Amino acid sequence: MKGRLIVFEGVEGCGKTTQLQRSHQWLKSSLSVIVTREPGGTHLGSELRQLLLTTPKQPICNSTELLLYAADRAQHVEEVLKPELANGMMILCDRYVDSTMAYQGYGRGLSRSLIEQLNNIATGGLESDLTLWLDIDVTVSLARKQQGASGGDRIEQEKIDFHRRVQQGYTELAQANPQRIVRIDASCNEAEVQKQIQQILLQRFPEIKNQG
Amino acid sequence: MKGRLIVFEGVEGCGKTTQLQRSHQWLKSSLSVIVTREPGGTHLGSELRQLLLTTPKQPICNSTELLLYAADRAQHVEEVLKPELANGMMILCDRYVDSTMAYQGYGRGLSRSLIEQLNNIATGGLESDLTLWLDIDVTVSLARKQQGASGGDRIEQEKIDFHRRVQQGYTELAQANPQRIVRIDASCNEAEVQKQIQQILLQRFPEIKNQG
Repeated sequence: MKGRLIVFEGVEGCGKTTQLQRSHQWLKSSLSVIVTREPGGTHLGSELRQLLLTTPKQPICNSTELLLYAADRAQHVEEVLKPELANGMMILCDRYVDSTMAYQGYGRGLSRSLIEQLNNIATGGLESDLTLWLDIDVTVSLARKQQGASGGDRIEQEKIDFHRRVQQGYTELAQANPQRIVRIDASCNEAEVQKQIQQILLQRFPEIKNQG
Repeated sequence: MKGRLIVFEGVEGCGKTTQLQRSHQWLKSSLSVIVTREPGGTHLGSELRQLLLTTPKQPICNSTELLLYAADRAQHVEEVLKPELANGMMILCDRYVDSTMAYQGYGRGLSRSLIEQLNNIATGGLESDLTLWLDIDVTVSLARKQQGASGGDRIEQEKIDFHRRVQQGYTELAQANPQRIVRIDASCNEAEVQKQIQQILLQRFPEIKNQG
């Protein structure tokens, strides 16, 4: 028995977490499905997440940061993903290897070959069965994020430029991995985005249809 | 101006830390010298050390552990070693890359090529100018460690076998890197070991003689 690893990816404000929850609701009546995330999907991972988010006395250097994210991932793969897949679970995971490449590699300009190396070490080669990339214009997604706060017009150019680079990363990753990464148009409303996701899931995984 | 990185290595009970302190005392009147260690040579490193030593709710898996040691090392290299070397400091460091290879690689049987990869990532290629390997029979060193507690005869065979593998690791590393790693006979008394170390340091680093 072999489960499925389905990853949700995209820039901040793309609606990824909401869509993951809705997919979970939709799937859970007919399938054994769990929800997890990176970073912080294990007890150790949540301590590392804490360490990464706390303002340190000395700044954490780039390679240290990549190694800590990789440590979080290695633990998540061994403690959660591999055993749950072996149990035949369908896993919905909020971010995985493509986030590190898009954010740290494309967004912050850290070495992509180093990130690829560390992703391989951390995952031991475990790839997702499907990665749903929620594609949305970054000015729209950042405006969404800011809504309720001070409005979309206050977003600084620097932030937009960073997210454009991340977006470019996802675009190139999707082009390079057309079988694994499926683009979802995340500019439409929540229900329409969810409909696209359900269609892809039904196409890819016959066990959903059979049990639904 | 370029400093010197001098690393002290060896199995537990080899007298490494004592000899490092004595060398520091001897050097500090004539040179700018600092003492540091791995893991735990930075603020972040001491938090990681804590994390590695605290009994976790779930066991930390092998690759996670290697990645956390590498993160500690990367931060130590960037925050301490590189800037202090650039300042012209002589650095005495308690353990560095060879410890990971000897303990995790040879001792625990984790992938040596993975350790080499992670050592390279963490150090960015920074090698020691000299590594002093304090070589001692493991039954003697473990007996030393146990003295004052319950005596040397209580050491279990498993512990001895593990340390023999670590010792074998140091032996092979020294053979493979004759320029970088110098063997010190650590079976003699403290003063004699220190004398050997001082002779090697004087041979290798003319600035000590000049200033002494």
